[in-house]
Amino acid sequence: MIEAWKQVLTLSKLRSGQVVTILSGADTHPQTLAAALIAVQSFGAIVNRLDLQPINGEKAHSRDALSYLGTTPLTGNRAAIAALKASDLVLDLMTLLFSAEQHEILKAGVKILLAVEPPEVLARLVPTADDRKRVLAASEKLGRAKLMHITSAAGTDFYCPLGEFGPISEYGFADEPGRWDHWPSGFTLTFPNDGQAYGRIVLDRGDILLPQKDYVREPIEMTIEGGYARRIEGGVDAELLRDYMAAFNDPEAFAISHIGWGLQPRARWSTLGLFNREATIGMDARAFEGNFLFSLGPNNEGGGNRSTTCHIDIPLRGCTVELDGEAVVRDGKVLDRVAHA
Amino acid sequence: MIEAWKQVLTLSKLRSGQVVTILSGADTHPQTLAAALIAVQSFGAIVNRLDLQPINGEKAHSRDALSYLGTTPLTGNRAAIAALKASDLVLDLMTLLFSAEQHEILKAGVKILLAVEPPEVLARLVPTADDRKRVLAASEKLGRAKLMHITSAAGTDFYCPLGEFGPISEYGFADEPGRWDHWPSGFTLTFPNDGQAYGRIVLDRGDILLPQKDYVREPIEMTIEGGYARRIEGGVDAELLRDYMAAFNDPEAFAISHIGWGLQPRARWSTLGLFNREATIGMDARAFEGNFLFSLGPNNEGGGNRSTTCHIDIPLRGCTVELDGEAVVRDGKVLDRVAHA
Amino acid sequence: MIEAWKQVLTLSKLRSGQVVTILSGADTHPQTLAAALIAVQSFGAIVNRLDLQPINGEKAHSRDALSYLGTTPLTGNRAAIAALKASDLVLDLMTLLFSAEQHEILKAGVKILLAVEPPEVLARLVPTADDRKRVLAASEKLGRAKLMHITSAAGTDFYCPLGEFGPISEYGFADEPGRWDHWPSGFTLTFPNDGQAYGRIVLDRGDILLPQKDYVREPIEMTIEGGYARRIEGGVDAELLRDYMAAFNDPEAFAISHIGWGLQPRARWSTLGLFNREATIGMDARAFEGNFLFSLGPNNEGGGNRSTTCHIDIPLRGCTVELDGEAVVRDGKVLDRVAHA
Amino acid sequence: MIEAWKQVLTLSKLRSGQVVTILSGADTHPQTLAAALIAVQSFGAIVNRLDLQPINGEKAHSRDALSYLGTTPLTGNRAAIAALKASDLVLDLMTLLFSAEQHEILKAGVKILLAVEPPEVLARLVPTADDRKRVLAASEKLGRAKLMHITSAAGTDFYCPLGEFGPISEYGFADEPGRWDHWPSGFTLTFPNDGQAYGRIVLDRGDILLPQKDYVREPIEMTIEGGYARRIEGGVDAELLRDYMAAFNDPEAFAISHIGWGLQPRARWSTLGLFNREATIGMDARAFEGNFLFSLGPNNEGGGNRSTTCHIDIPLRGCTVELDGEAVVRDGKVLDRVAHA
Amino acid sequence: MIEAWKQVLTLSKLRSGQVVTILSGADTHPQTLAAALIAVQSFGAIVNRLDLQPINGEKAHSRDALSYLGTTPLTGNRAAIAALKASDLVLDLMTLLFSAEQHEILKAGVKILLAVEPPEVLARLVPTADDRKRVLAASEKLGRAKLMHITSAAGTDFYCPLGEFGPISEYGFADEPGRWDHWPSGFTLTFPNDGQAYGRIVLDRGDILLPQKDYVREPIEMTIEGGYARRIEGGVDAELLRDYMAAFNDPEAFAISHIGWGLQPRARWSTLGLFNREATIGMDARAFEGNFLFSLGPNNEGGGNRSTTCHIDIPLRGCTVELDGEAVVRDGKVLDRVAHA
Amino acid sequence: MIEAWKQVLTLSKLRSGQVVTILSGADTHPQTLAAALIAVQSFGAIVNRLDLQPINGEKAHSRDALSYLGTTPLTGNRAAIAALKASDLVLDLMTLLFSAEQHEILKAGVKILLAVEPPEVLARLVPTADDRKRVLAASEKLGRAKLMHITSAAGTDFYCPLGEFGPISEYGFADEPGRWDHWPSGFTLTFPNDGQAYGRIVLDRGDILLPQKDYVREPIEMTIEGGYARRIEGGVDAELLRDYMAAFNDPEAFAISHIGWGLQPRARWSTLGLFNREATIGMDARAFEGNFLFSLGPNNEGGGNRSTTCHIDIPLRGCTVELDGEAVVRDGKVLDRVAHA
Repeated sequence: MIEAWKQVLTLSKLRSGQVVTILSGADTHPQTLAAALIAVQSFGAIVNRLDLQPINGEKAHSRDALSYLGTTPLTGNRAAIAALKASDLVLDLMTLLFSAEQHEILKAGVKILLAVEPPEVLARLVPTADDRKRVLAASEKLGRAKLMHITSAAGTDFYCPLGEFGPISEYGFADEPGRWDHWPSGFTLTFPNDGQAYGRIVLDRGDILLPQKDYVREPIEMTIEGGYARRIEGGVDAELLRDYMAAFNDPEAFAISHIGWGLQPRARWSTLGLFNREATIGMDARAFEGNFLFSLGPNNEGGGNRSTTCHIDIPLRGCTVELDGEAVVRDGKVLDRVAHA
Repeated sequence: MIEAWKQVLTLSKLRSGQVVTILSGADTHPQTLAAALIAVQSFGAIVNRLDLQPINGEKAHSRDALSYLGTTPLTGNRAAIAALKASDLVLDLMTLLFSAEQHEILKAGVKILLAVEPPEVLARLVPTADDRKRVLAASEKLGRAKLMHITSAAGTDFYCPLGEFGPISEYGFADEPGRWDHWPSGFTLTFPNDGQAYGRIVLDRGDILLPQKDYVREPIEMTIEGGYARRIEGGVDAELLRDYMAAFNDPEAFAISHIGWGLQPRARWSTLGLFNREATIGMDARAFEGNFLFSLGPNNEGGGNRSTTCHIDIPLRGCTVELDGEAVVRDGKVLDRVAHA
Repeated sequence: MIEAWKQVLTLSKLRSGQVVTILSGADTHPQTLAAALIAVQSFGAIVNRLDLQPINGEKAHSRDALSYLGTTPLTGNRAAIAALKASDLVLDLMTLLFSAEQHEILKAGVKILLAVEPPEVLARLVPTADDRKRVLAASEKLGRAKLMHITSAAGTDFYCPLGEFGPISEYGFADEPGRWDHWPSGFTLTFPNDGQAYGRIVLDRGDILLPQKDYVREPIEMTIEGGYARRIEGGVDAELLRDYMAAFNDPEAFAISHIGWGLQPRARWSTLGLFNREATIGMDARAFEGNFLFSLGPNNEGGGNRSTTCHIDIPLRGCTVELDGEAVVRDGKVLDRVAHA
Repeated sequence: MIEAWKQVLTLSKLRSGQVVTILSGADTHPQTLAAALIAVQSFGAIVNRLDLQPINGEKAHSRDALSYLGTTPLTGNRAAIAALKASDLVLDLMTLLFSAEQHEILKAGVKILLAVEPPEVLARLVPTADDRKRVLAASEKLGRAKLMHITSAAGTDFYCPLGEFGPISEYGFADEPGRWDHWPSGFTLTFPNDGQAYGRIVLDRGDILLPQKDYVREPIEMTIEGGYARRIEGGVDAELLRDYMAAFNDPEAFAISHIGWGLQPRARWSTLGLFNREATIGMDARAFEGNFLFSLGPNNEGGGNRSTTCHIDIPLRGCTVELDGEAVVRDGKVLDRVAHA
Repeated sequence: MIEAWKQVLTLSKLRSGQVVTILSGADTHPQTLAAALIAVQSFGAIVNRLDLQPINGEKAHSRDALSYLGTTPLTGNRAAIAALKASDLVLDLMTLLFSAEQHEILKAGVKILLAVEPPEVLARLVPTADDRKRVLAASEKLGRAKLMHITSAAGTDFYCPLGEFGPISEYGFADEPGRWDHWPSGFTLTFPNDGQAYGRIVLDRGDILLPQKDYVREPIEMTIEGGYARRIEGGVDAELLRDYMAAFNDPEAFAISHIGWGLQPRARWSTLGLFNREATIGMDARAFEGNFLFSLGPNNEGGGNRSTTCHIDIPLRGCTVELDGEAVVRDGKVLDRVAHA
Repeated sequence: MIEAWKQVLTLSKLRSGQVVTILSGADTHPQTLAAALIAVQSFGAIVNRLDLQPINGEKAHSRDALSYLGTTPLTGNRAAIAALKASDLVLDLMTLLFSAEQHEILKAGVKILLAVEPPEVLARLVPTADDRKRVLAASEKLGRAKLMHITSAAGTDFYCPLGEFGPISEYGFADEPGRWDHWPSGFTLTFPNDGQAYGRIVLDRGDILLPQKDYVREPIEMTIEGGYARRIEGGVDAELLRDYMAAFNDPEAFAISHIGWGLQPRARWSTLGLFNREATIGMDARAFEGNFLFSLGPNNEGGGNRSTTCHIDIPLRGCTVELDGEAVVRDGKVLDRVAHA
């Protein structure tokens, strides 16, 4: 793990004398924390550990940190924010995703790298410079597109007008001031124009629901109108999803959030079935090469103003993703493979 | 968690100078224990921690504390029993369910509150005074009934003559001397007259088996005659259930045990699919509003004399529950909703 | 657990003054380790704890120690090998399976006993002298056979010419110099002649995949030709298996490895559904009475020269296993039952 | 340690089926506790661990548990007292000395054994049946005496009229119902008739003050009149003792408490100089053979009605102790040595 | 401890919504930390824990945090400094004494409270509003004085011209913005005019050296000229002090640093002899009522520009302290006692 | 600490691919162990941790590992010895001093480095290449001498005929196969010819007794005849030493063991007075520059055949040490200083 951290920190351009602040909480993996402390110090950098107290998430039904997006331990915490803004690099080992405070810190030019998967997953999915090149190339293409159209043999036929929000790339390290990234990752994403996505999404058997972290056992059909999933139909799996979402009691939970596709060849679709449900947050599922990843919930991360505490990520297999009529993924295969032997 | 405990202890009418004994074991969650110790002391009460050694449960196939009901660390343990009988309130953080010793302690006027779910579940399902009112109202109705009849679209048609045993209410705190309760809960239950339940129960897809803590994937049909499940038929799920029960090698395992319905609006059917299987004992599943909860196994908890180490709880969705012809739950909806907006 | 260890050590013929070395690692269960240390010392034996550092298993997708067979912390580690070779008994609490170093240690006359299941499983499945007798009788029969033929109602029709490799018995303790065993176990196995197995294996619903540690939900059909699974067909479960195996990028992963049948009456098919996926390595599934256990991957453990890091165990229910035309298991029932009341 | 506990429990006549309650607190040594739990269970006895919360000892200046005798965690704690009274044997690993509750428990026929020295000291000073015989013989002699007269070359000339209180023996195990003992120990003691002790005590260089746990560096002279130390004179050591005692602001602190002599040949005067001050409570110093041990403070332990929170033990070397004119110790040598080769 | 923290925080005027940052390190006492976290949150304040990595103190001979004053983990650590400056209150549980960074933080209006003594000492010496009044009154007197003259029966005759530096008060809590204080304390101090102190200081038997944390056993005589201890004479104790100071190889170590007197009636001279040497930093010794406390080493804390890593505190008993000819302490008794019954 | 270990391992010529075995026990400092594991792996070396169970040392009165030399956890432990003999370097973090097994391991060409002082002491006393040169030069001189004569102002006049045993050097790292060393150290020593040492040794005030780890408070005079201390006279300190030694009941305890002098300029005489007694084994006291270090007890370490469990080290200050009439230390000053500026 120390070697893995060193590679990530090198790619993140850590220099001697810089200040790194590690955010930790009750669930931070001790091996990840210990390795990070040693690795940062081996660069001659100054390291702080800022341990935040948990805040109450009374309404959270899942313990998955990516599934519930509300107030964070940073809310109103001037001292913690000041520390983070005065750092060169923040290693977030406790998941501060999507908060206003995070945006403020990034605007101060701080790099943030989230890393909360278990050590085994982190070690297998250490990012590379090639990951960055491939994700940036895809991101650029996505940034130029006006329409994303997704189809699948299972029945998906989903249209996302684009242009309102820019593309976002995640390749696993934070090499530029103000950049947020997530180790492990490897995908590009954007948000459909607000209220404009429409069509049908069919989750086929074997597709994945996060935070349920299980494979769908029977098809779930979503009808999207005006940017929201208006109907979620199917069998027991559809009912479970509806019951889960109903607990948030928030119509914004049904909005289409980010959309994009996976580009990480070392991540795999089948990995989810090998771990305890709560042992991972599912980055293999989000990043495996060729999946179409869409989500329900907020778009404030992308620059919109919709926020909701409910956030569901859904990677689909076997889709064709077209940008302005040109396929970038066909039947679950990324079409840039030639260049990436 | 400290605030959650304070609310529970207030509802349990803890007073300064009273003596509280906390039962702990190897699996007690350290955060729950620490919060309980602090909360009790903040009332000016005297607190003991009685840590019991595990006893051998060689035949137990599941590690779920509710699934195996045998001798407990209290059996023959005069000193521990004396401590518990001399307490005003016992916080059971290790699961002493259904033992003869527990009855003896309650008879001495001691309150017992079981609390073994993980802190996240305890915090979300902190009981309220309203929970108590609602459960007691249902319980009263149940106490007057002579027949419970349960039907469902999936094919359930199950008759339980009542009257031999009184109703039991669980609302999450122990506010009267001699009362046992369980945080979290929120349901009422009773036992059918011994040997008289009959009919058919169909576990539909999406219904839950405890301690398997999984959703049923294909229907399981139970034929009940003379108070016992005589046949358990269906596919692989039925086979797994039979194989599990066969391990106990005890015909009493197939008897109908308690029956009742869930009344807790903050508990949800879908929660089970978000946790590791062994991270919870499944109280969300037992308490979610409108489920028909029945179980297989002992009735000594209710005053009967059937005891068996095997105890299986099964919450069904979408049932209609009638008491003497009057529906209290229809198609999975509790009919007292008007009064409980 | 101390009593359980004492029985295992008695069966393993531990004597006063002998030297026992316990191999431990980061994942060793502290209760198992503590009980082993006390039990060994109660025999008057000398005990060492040799704690090995983890080595990098970058390609491992599962954290299950039986699923990835590569270099071990013993590779090149002269001091550790010397310690183990100078011991009378090695208790392997960290899983050194299938390594060249292990063979070298056994050749020096050392006994090795693997024990990594959680304490609850170890306590339930403590081996007995009868287990040994039954397994040895089956093993002897297996050693004389020239052909194993497996059939099932689900469609399995699988032929394994035998004779090239001897039989292996696992009964849960190491009572002879140079013997390796695994607590818990209870089965006999061998390897088909290299490149000669052929036919069809159908994994039915309810059969088990390890390390996925889940029940198969829809049939998977494997076509075996020349000793290799040439096709793996079916639905999502078949796809998941293929995706998992593809990650190893090794054609040898598809070879038929060991074959045999379960003989342990205290192990059960249904147990897997009660534990967290990663809480167990699945010995109940491997050993339950009457299962046909086959695996994909290496045969160097049996004396062959095929090695691969991928190792998948698959117990099937309801099979008929014939040796040279004589059934030893019929429809999932072991035919030696008369003698083993 | 397990073997040491087994010997102590055998001498304490522990039987299968009896109930043993272990009192633990924050300072209980984990190795002592673990060994006690295992040893008790190896007798087939039932064991409880009762963990008591610390109470505030705001006025305590030393952290030594023997030096401050006030309210204990048992005060008002009905449940804990009930548990202890219903036990056959209580192992006190947290020091409940001299409390009213302890007397109540002993009167119920319970045996109590205190054991709080570090494991190394416990292991070296395991009691024997011979210890008991020797201490009882001395105790019997003491019980018949009317006057104890102590002299020393350093100038001690101290008279204690006896008869009001009986003799007490401590030999390291609790073999009779209602007996309290302390492992390790080995001495006999009694209390002078209330208000009658008089004379001069000179603490010479090398004598020991407890809880200071240091050797006296320059003589301290105490003048005793009417049962109280009226003057404490000397140099800095005398000043330190006076400053320490003044903090209690209690004239009863200056009363002569118990008097007696040491009989434990395995305890040594020089041991105190090898440990950290707070690593031990000084039982070597109290028990080493031939010391004259007197103390200042309460006599309620012996049946009197003087209680005070201040308790100081002072072992003197080289004294001659006479009972009614017959020397039992001469110049620091016990005169029963002939019989105890 | 929670109650003790609450009193300290109340006196420190903590309000809901304020931000408190707790500095912790490897040696922070876990009970103190846990109690502080709970107490701060009970005020509705936001709490951070900032855990700093140790820096190398290669030349430090003592592990006492007050004895070696060099670079701290804050040096160059912009993020940590930013966090502390943005806090309302900093609880320093790791000892950041006398650093430039600390001054910068205080100048930003932050309150800092140091608390590193063991919980038993903190609990006994909880500060009060009366402590503050008494210390401030003494401090005011000290601020007006031009000459401090200290004499003692042991031979001390020491003159300190005053006026260059202001008085400093320590009463145990931080109630004003920009205030630093230390729990426990209770004394006033100032620094002599730079280079002007002169005369003779005689450490008598029973006086205390910190960090040696032992009573002086034979007199040590210091000759002070031009603000420096030019000669340190006496026996072995003097030699030990010289050897300790020589290790710093710094002439500034011999300068007279702060001077003042103790005003804390709950602190006692004799306490030091009851603890392990490294269990305390000696605040009882610094604060006990009537001691004359002087120190050797830096004066930058008081506003001077002398800094040195060596810092020795020496409380003397029985001195007379005169300010411009008026005694404030006579023979070790504080002369304000009338007003402080 | 990681940097400190790296320097020690570099000086010890650790190479990639070599095998290092770390011996640990219950008292091994976790920070030292963790740092050693990381440092060894950073060299590309293979590391084992061999954790040995404690053996009973019933007669030991001190817990100091250097003070009691008996059977070790290696006695009869073939597996552990095999591991150590197959290692290139053994890091002894649990103290295996003076055992026959250690000699056997060294003869196999293994390097052993003992390191058990607390991290603060290890960090301050990291060895250097210069330490080695200086110690070897002194050792060479010592190897050629026929008589060592020690005198002091306090009255020491002690003669040690030499030649029977060779010189031993300890400079803090193990750079040659078969070399044992101790970090920290820095001295040379040998043993007087068996039974030939004679004269008088006077321990002056301020000299140090180990394992008492205290400064002598009043002179102790030893009369040496025929190689044994025949009389030990003085005050209370002499009595304490006699009482301590009498506990071993072994005349060999009084033999003169090793003799030599300290050469480590970073070790200091005064350090002992700053630590808890049991926090250190006293290497500062043994190694400080210019001390004459002699010991009582065994000479088997040096090649003699006297063994005893009692081992006392005594560093004296201010001695003159002459080898064949030439002073190597005069009045506590080493005479090679010119060469070691």
